[in-house]
Amino acid sequence: MSVRTPDPNPGWLSEEDLHEARRRLPMVYVEAVPVRLDALGYLTEIGMLYTADDDGRFYRTFVSGRVLYRETIRGALIRHIEKDLGSLALPQLPPSPVPFTVAEYFPSPSETGLVDDRQHAVSLAYVIPVSGECEPRQDALEVAWLTPEQALGADVGAELLGGRSRLLRQALAHMGWTD
Amino acid sequence: MSVRTPDPNPGWLSEEDLHEARRRLPMVYVEAVPVRLDALGYLTEIGMLYTADDDGRFYRTFVSGRVLYRETIRGALIRHIEKDLGSLALPQLPPSPVPFTVAEYFPSPSETGLVDDRQHAVSLAYVIPVSGECEPRQDALEVAWLTPEQALGADVGAELLGGRSRLLRQALAHMGWTD
Amino acid sequence: MSVRTPDPNPGWLSEEDLHEARRRLPMVYVEAVPVRLDALGYLTEIGMLYTADDDGRFYRTFVSGRVLYRETIRGALIRHIEKDLGSLALPQLPPSPVPFTVAEYFPSPSETGLVDDRQHAVSLAYVIPVSGECEPRQDALEVAWLTPEQALGADVGAELLGGRSRLLRQALAHMGWTD
Amino acid sequence: MSVRTPDPNPGWLSEEDLHEARRRLPMVYVEAVPVRLDALGYLTEIGMLYTADDDGRFYRTFVSGRVLYRETIRGALIRHIEKDLGSLALPQLPPSPVPFTVAEYFPSPSETGLVDDRQHAVSLAYVIPVSGECEPRQDALEVAWLTPEQALGADVGAELLGGRSRLLRQALAHMGWTD
Repeated sequence: MSVRTPDPNPGWLSEEDLHEARRRLPMVYVEAVPVRLDALGYLTEIGMLYTADDDGRFYRTFVSGRVLYRETIRGALIRHIEKDLGSLALPQLPPSPVPFTVAEYFPSPSETGLVDDRQHAVSLAYVIPVSGECEPRQDALEVAWLTPEQALGADVGAELLGGRSRLLRQALAHMGWTD
Repeated sequence: MSVRTPDPNPGWLSEEDLHEARRRLPMVYVEAVPVRLDALGYLTEIGMLYTADDDGRFYRTFVSGRVLYRETIRGALIRHIEKDLGSLALPQLPPSPVPFTVAEYFPSPSETGLVDDRQHAVSLAYVIPVSGECEPRQDALEVAWLTPEQALGADVGAELLGGRSRLLRQALAHMGWTD
Repeated sequence: MSVRTPDPNPGWLSEEDLHEARRRLPMVYVEAVPVRLDALGYLTEIGMLYTADDDGRFYRTFVSGRVLYRETIRGALIRHIEKDLGSLALPQLPPSPVPFTVAEYFPSPSETGLVDDRQHAVSLAYVIPVSGECEPRQDALEVAWLTPEQALGADVGAELLGGRSRLLRQALAHMGWTD
Repeated sequence: MSVRTPDPNPGWLSEEDLHEARRRLPMVYVEAVPVRLDALGYLTEIGMLYTADDDGRFYRTFVSGRVLYRETIRGALIRHIEKDLGSLALPQLPPSPVPFTVAEYFPSPSETGLVDDRQHAVSLAYVIPVSGECEPRQDALEVAWLTPEQALGADVGAELLGGRSRLLRQALAHMGWTD
């Protein structure tokens, strides 16, 4: 039995407890694929974060992060978009709460092809038009904007973390774009 | 057999031919439910056109209109939004071409509850965030912005043309809003 | 610091730990609105569980339950449907993983109108056609099938647990049905 | 002015008039991508019609056809599925009327990549699970069932008519499947 002192902030989770919860419970995530649209709503560019892991390996990813206790999905989306793209990105959150897909990340071996070795994450994925200026967060090297053709290139796909090239293709297909 | 001279503009349809086609073929329509959203994407207001028919009866409706030959759905949406809300409305067309519903209007008696006595119209319906200023088209008296609670009022529903209170409720539910 | 012996089943969570996690982390849930469809896919009936809580109060709800660690959404859906409707229900899971809505349940006061006093649950909600015979689970009194008109009645709405009359209306609107 | 005798069946359109309307008005179409699903709803196989055109060229396509005047979308879907897959296919029409995409076919040059040289067709595309036996219609040689991997093969894509390899990829992505 664990004996704990009363917790003044029950939504708070220590690093250790979070680490442990991640081995026991699926985590709720949101994921945002930033896009630039033209006046008719057609896709012109897709935004990706270009970053490096602890081993100095470069990779690409989308905006993503955990939903906190008592946080709404929309609140989590805005918080992670601001963290990753800066406060001048002017994201347009969609009127509907329905994601374009639900991405299921598992520690490998993953039966979905999406991998996150820290945890089992159920990620609600949204396409988010942004019309402002994006500046990368501290630990990201760059916010890169790619045309759909560039984004579908084999080199980009290989750099996308955790099988997110699948997510990219689903986002593009959702927008009516396929190669 | 009808003998016709060659038509220099085959996409053009005379008023008479259009009238006749409307008795024989389903017409492709687009419909836009204009909305104001807050920074998190939550619905704040719904836009409706307030207008009068030839008999002086007042009614409410949404932006809607026909898709022309060789016109894209996005092109038709922008054209009708500009016609009905003016050129400063700043509509944000969605990244996905999938409508929130497909509304089937039939001459009465209609089995769907949606009625258009001129024609059988298959209408692709979209929720369109607008962030600019709207000014009513010539034959509309007003662009009225209502809160969701106001829009769901019985008096508003009764003024919505052709059974569009159903469409309104579907649009609201799509945005996660119900009474 | 909590000292624990190695856990042979890391997906397992003690009742106490689960209770605590529920005060700290959003839980991933799935929810199924069972429906009967006619040959054209039109809705004919909606299934609800009629049950009683510990105080003997009667209420209605849908199939719902937690997604376990390393369990897929589809696996969780089937598991909870079998538990609540029996093994002869013949549910038809949809080809797409996209829910018709994402329901956010919070301990009261809830800003979404959906309430679960045990926890913050993010629930992926699906409409699930069932064509077989349903028998209620042990703790449910009945699986009741209602027409859409009956389901939208005020008395039914008042008996739906945790604000699920909103979910019901969203499910109906998703199927093209509104009152 | 065309003088016509009263038409006892106003929904009827002569071959000549239909030919002409196709040069003037977008046609409403439905399209069905037949699929086999496993018990969890995961995609196992995709059905395609294998047929030959007047020049003896072989090609693949999906179930598709026109929506008639006063016909509902669901009615048109069932009619075309029965025509193309036979009356024992046991299709399961979805509870929602929302298509997975709206395919816009234009006479070439088409700006969407989807081509139909006879007409401008706006096609509502649905994924339709079928659980029965399919037999090809008279003018089709075969109903072929392919795994997703087979369907995404370059040879199959090249045989798909009118740019429908795009539609195939969108259908697969909608089901959570990408290569």
